Amino acid sequence: MVSRKAKIAILGFGTVGSSVARILCERELPELELRAVFNRGVERKRVPWTPASVRWTSDFEEVLAAGLDIVVETAGGLDPAGSWIRRLLAAGVSVVTANKKLIAAEGPELEEIAASHGCQVLYGAAVAGGIPVIPGIQQGLAGDAIYSLRGILNGTSNFILSNMEEGLDFGAVLSQAQEHGYAEADPTEDVDGLDARAKLVILSRIGMRKDVPVEAIDCRTIRDLTAIDFAYARVLNCTIRQIARAEVREGGLVASVGPMLVPRSSPLAWARGTENMIISSGRYGGETVFSGHGAGGHPTAVAVVSDLLAIAHGGHPIMIPGSAVKVTNDFLVSRYLRVVVDDRPGIIAQIAGHLAEHGINIDAILQKPGFDHHALPFVVTVERCRRAAFDEALRKIAAIDCMKTPPVALAILDPPAKQ
Amino acid sequence: MVSRKAKIAILGFGTVGSSVARILCERELPELELRAVFNRGVERKRVPWTPASVRWTSDFEEVLAAGLDIVVETAGGLDPAGSWIRRLLAAGVSVVTANKKLIAAEGPELEEIAASHGCQVLYGAAVAGGIPVIPGIQQGLAGDAIYSLRGILNGTSNFILSNMEEGLDFGAVLSQAQEHGYAEADPTEDVDGLDARAKLVILSRIGMRKDVPVEAIDCRTIRDLTAIDFAYARVLNCTIRQIARAEVREGGLVASVGPMLVPRSSPLAWARGTENMIISSGRYGGETVFSGHGAGGHPTAVAVVSDLLAIAHGGHPIMIPGSAVKVTNDFLVSRYLRVVVDDRPGIIAQIAGHLAEHGINIDAILQKPGFDHHALPFVVTVERCRRAAFDEALRKIAAIDCMKTPPVALAILDPPAKQ
Repeated sequence: MVSRKAKIAILGFGTVGSSVARILCERELPELELRAVFNRGVERKRVPWTPASVRWTSDFEEVLAAGLDIVVETAGGLDPAGSWIRRLLAAGVSVVTANKKLIAAEGPELEEIAASHGCQVLYGAAVAGGIPVIPGIQQGLAGDAIYSLRGILNGTSNFILSNMEEGLDFGAVLSQAQEHGYAEADPTEDVDGLDARAKLVILSRIGMRKDVPVEAIDCRTIRDLTAIDFAYARVLNCTIRQIARAEVREGGLVASVGPMLVPRSSPLAWARGTENMIISSGRYGGETVFSGHGAGGHPTAVAVVSDLLAIAHGGHPIMIPGSAVKVTNDFLVSRYLRVVVDDRPGIIAQIAGHLAEHGINIDAILQKPGFDHHALPFVVTVERCRRAAFDEALRKIAAIDCMKTPPVALAILDPPAKQ
Repeated sequence: MVSRKAKIAILGFGTVGSSVARILCERELPELELRAVFNRGVERKRVPWTPASVRWTSDFEEVLAAGLDIVVETAGGLDPAGSWIRRLLAAGVSVVTANKKLIAAEGPELEEIAASHGCQVLYGAAVAGGIPVIPGIQQGLAGDAIYSLRGILNGTSNFILSNMEEGLDFGAVLSQAQEHGYAEADPTEDVDGLDARAKLVILSRIGMRKDVPVEAIDCRTIRDLTAIDFAYARVLNCTIRQIARAEVREGGLVASVGPMLVPRSSPLAWARGTENMIISSGRYGGETVFSGHGAGGHPTAVAVVSDLLAIAHGGHPIMIPGSAVKVTNDFLVSRYLRVVVDDRPGIIAQIAGHLAEHGINIDAILQKPGFDHHALPFVVTVERCRRAAFDEALRKIAAIDCMKTPPVALAILDPPAKQ
């Protein structure tokens, strides 16, 4: 089916870009030929193991003029990656990218440019790196009506949380993650949920055909979790994970990203280290689980090379346009509330009072022994309630004068309502 | 991307065929239009919920002459399904099939016929029903070099084994499975491994590019397992599952299907009921796990409809020809041997002697108390050894005069050697 080698360039020779080059050079795939590598100050990036025929350049115009078939974009970020990709597509050059930020923000627009110039933009590497969740959902589950997607989409946060589960502190594990190269110097994108949110936007588009503006999805940080929360999670037969989830409800979408209590019986509780996992629920096919290495140069490069092969073999993904949708964060779930108080009589009555004012029923009150009464942590769990009502009660509880730290509230994951 | 509706017929209106029709009628996909249903004695199959425009027929020639774009084959079996598909492809009509037996035996030949007549034959439903393992591996992991595939590919066997784990008898669970409709009146294909073997052949072809003749893969039944084996498995911190596995080794392939001891730490031990699971290991991407509903009308129909959409949207899978390969069952693994003996002094010495003759080291001897000495079960586990040597020793052990039943030998699953 392949008449000649596709001529390829790589834009951005960092971890993923060099892994792509490595696979292309080692596997010697007859369909693909690496012709050029572009990077700012390319000389310091040059490696000895690519064929002599590969052109190394710091001039994007040279890439554009090189008569290439496909360009791999692994530079990242919205700009200049976005304008490079636009110019390539407009010149009829297909693009394979790992850039979740760009695809979440501008995917449909880029796909339109590509379609009108007879080329493609593929982004299998943008979500969950080496796990083939994009072809799995976009092609393999196209026949289903997916109503729920939930997943662990950020390896850094999962590394931090699964290590905190062993008793370590947020700060200590973050430093460890930074030493291992799992976390950036500024970990905001990972721990505050922005990275997982971009991926959730992409999954909602391909899985549920919903066009979600990135900012419409509520993100909550994992920075305020402490060892205490993991200890209480254990009492509740749960652990804590950063969960990205989206659920179709009455034409709208309920979606959020942030730490949640996850029952130990859920596969999502089993994801350890930098592992990623996605669970899709469909009206006809039920639950499907994908898991594996969500990040790292080599696994992400596998997704890139797979997309290169798809284009070289004349493949087209199933592209069904999405529709705009109203997004809320209003999940109906049971919730966990942890406070640290300077103890005095009547506190529980006060908290219970604020919850009752908003029609929220208490499920359990947990208090582990052995803490200083001037900084006493305890936990209240409440029955299924809406986010809006809970947030109102929470605001009042946070204002009680004996609070030593801001209360920590987490939703408790339950299976999606069958549709 | 879709200019007009693809006209579709369904050949074989059983569980899967009617689920396909159900999804096409309920979801009203703009790309797909059900035009005809073919079945022998079609009148007894007719349902009231398809559009009046759907033609019901028992005449295959009518299907062939109807000017269709895609035919769904859910009749099953090698014949006449194979000759129908050949005639359709030769007439330029694409085919989507769930027929693992046919695709395992004749897949490459059918793909050639399709390619030379400008149409396609897709079979995403042939392996693991609703789990998108075929697009996941064929497209999503095309960039990797997969060296190991292992999975639970037969829901019936997994239902039986995960229930036997709870203390039930093979015969009792089989009857239960037959009542639930999970097992056929003749369960041979499922419990003796033939069904899983056909799927392993297909996965080896798309994942490893190896053309494996179906009969080349060794199958072992699960019929001779008893409650005793599950009790000893528990002592060894394992359970028992029907595992289909293939591993690339020095240009050849090591492959087998049959019951194995699976450590409880492996995700394969967590598959319960009729669930399916596939773990692929690649040189670059590491381990990827797919799991979900491997069978049943609706999940399998999701895979069929997904393939219909792929064709309607002009998609082509990445098709890389396979190469012939030598297949052995010679895994180097540790093994479990369970015997039931009429006890007398010297038996263990005799068994140990036969193992030693073939250079096999004993790892542990386990004997649970409380059994009749005239039908005494005990277990010997041995260190990693080749199948051929072990089978020789086993033949001699089986011939010891005090054996009350044929010994049961199981390989113990360990992670594939990294490549």
